[in-house]
Amino acid sequence: MEKLYVIKIGGNIVDNPTLLTNFLTAFSTIEGQAILVHGGGKLATSLATTLGVEQTMVEGRRITDGETLKIVTMVYAGYINKNIIAQLQALHVNAMGLSGVDGNLLKAHKRANANIDYGFVGDIDSVNQAFIQQQLANQLRLVVAPITHDGAGQLLNTNADTIAQSIAVSMSGLYEVHLVYGFEKEGVLADVTNEGSVISSINNLTYSQLKKENVIFEGMIPKIDNAFLALNGGVQSVIIGKAEKLIELMNGTAGTTITN
Amino acid sequence: MEKLYVIKIGGNIVDNPTLLTNFLTAFSTIEGQAILVHGGGKLATSLATTLGVEQTMVEGRRITDGETLKIVTMVYAGYINKNIIAQLQALHVNAMGLSGVDGNLLKAHKRANANIDYGFVGDIDSVNQAFIQQQLANQLRLVVAPITHDGAGQLLNTNADTIAQSIAVSMSGLYEVHLVYGFEKEGVLADVTNEGSVISSINNLTYSQLKKENVIFEGMIPKIDNAFLALNGGVQSVIIGKAEKLIELMNGTAGTTITN
Repeated sequence: MEKLYVIKIGGNIVDNPTLLTNFLTAFSTIEGQAILVHGGGKLATSLATTLGVEQTMVEGRRITDGETLKIVTMVYAGYINKNIIAQLQALHVNAMGLSGVDGNLLKAHKRANANIDYGFVGDIDSVNQAFIQQQLANQLRLVVAPITHDGAGQLLNTNADTIAQSIAVSMSGLYEVHLVYGFEKEGVLADVTNEGSVISSINNLTYSQLKKENVIFEGMIPKIDNAFLALNGGVQSVIIGKAEKLIELMNGTAGTTITN
Repeated sequence: MEKLYVIKIGGNIVDNPTLLTNFLTAFSTIEGQAILVHGGGKLATSLATTLGVEQTMVEGRRITDGETLKIVTMVYAGYINKNIIAQLQALHVNAMGLSGVDGNLLKAHKRANANIDYGFVGDIDSVNQAFIQQQLANQLRLVVAPITHDGAGQLLNTNADTIAQSIAVSMSGLYEVHLVYGFEKEGVLADVTNEGSVISSINNLTYSQLKKENVIFEGMIPKIDNAFLALNGGVQSVIIGKAEKLIELMNGTAGTTITN
């Protein structure tokens, strides 16, 4: 099967023009198929502040009211997405920016929770595999903004990590999919205070052991649990590490590679 | 040759949720190929005002400084474009929103003028005909926001009328293209004070006559000159009329049809 890289970058890259340009330059050197999913960054929050739209956080999650949805749609699907595409075009990569509503890429439903109303936040129901396959066959690089829709005209704000995972799982029947999560750290660390202590590979067996020994704990557990969900869904490997080292992450010479 | 309709709507439709929904409902009933190009509307201006970004108009044209470009990118390519697509998806039309940077759809250069610096305003150099053809072959309805790029990483603000015309001309080698300009009036009027006095068809001969008789004058002349440019570029017909009457415009039962 042909390889497909699904690569997610977050706010730390999107917010920093130099890091973003360096990342996109590395991304432009990838041969073969790749999909980029980007998160939001601070621009939406600062625009909301300027516009006087109060941001409510509940348990670390942003509540997306109508005005906030308008702002994230403008910032994620408009400003960030189109500037990434303009840079990729300048690097001679024929890229196309999409939000989940385009080509019915990502259908979702408004999150229902008896205790907390998250507002216009969407949980993904389906990925349009045929559409992605068509576009990849057209030799286009896809860049996805974290906005989905409910099929009834409502746009929804959706977590970029989850989007990357859903796309990776959906495409795993057609491609050998590798899911790359770019984040702030070098990878999963044996010693959280030491960026040099990257655990280069983790599988089911070593994961149990690392948890038992309390090497992996707290915030890292849901991340790795998610990685195993992707692997169980058919993804070949999940690589976690510093987005700035994209090529090394893909080569297996940086970051943590998680396999079954 | 297969028919392709290139349809342009402006701010009067985009700014009015009821008119927009009615228009998109009509648009969803079109059988065969269609591309929608939308203008901006007042939202960008009101956002600029709220954000304290001063808008400078020179000879009726908005000067696009860096902050204004950011705003129009957010509003046109983000908010307006994605909301149109969400509505079309709800109407079971598999549409995809694009700006000129996506798939290298519309390459432009920053307008050079010795007397006026228009800022980040782009004049179109090329339309990616192959890309459009690919996407139409994928049975997708394309919805284009009036943002282009210069190929060197710079986004540019570009007139939606010109975008519609450029796309129409570019596709006329492959399709029988009909270009529909939706605007506020019923069509070209024999008596500007009477919306019932629509001239149903104009060709080269009758146009000269109508100009000579001063029936067509002032603001309407550049519009019709533009229409003849499109026709000379290979477009089959140009139809001007009320966007609310889309189907009638396409049937030739409303508006003014201009042919060579």
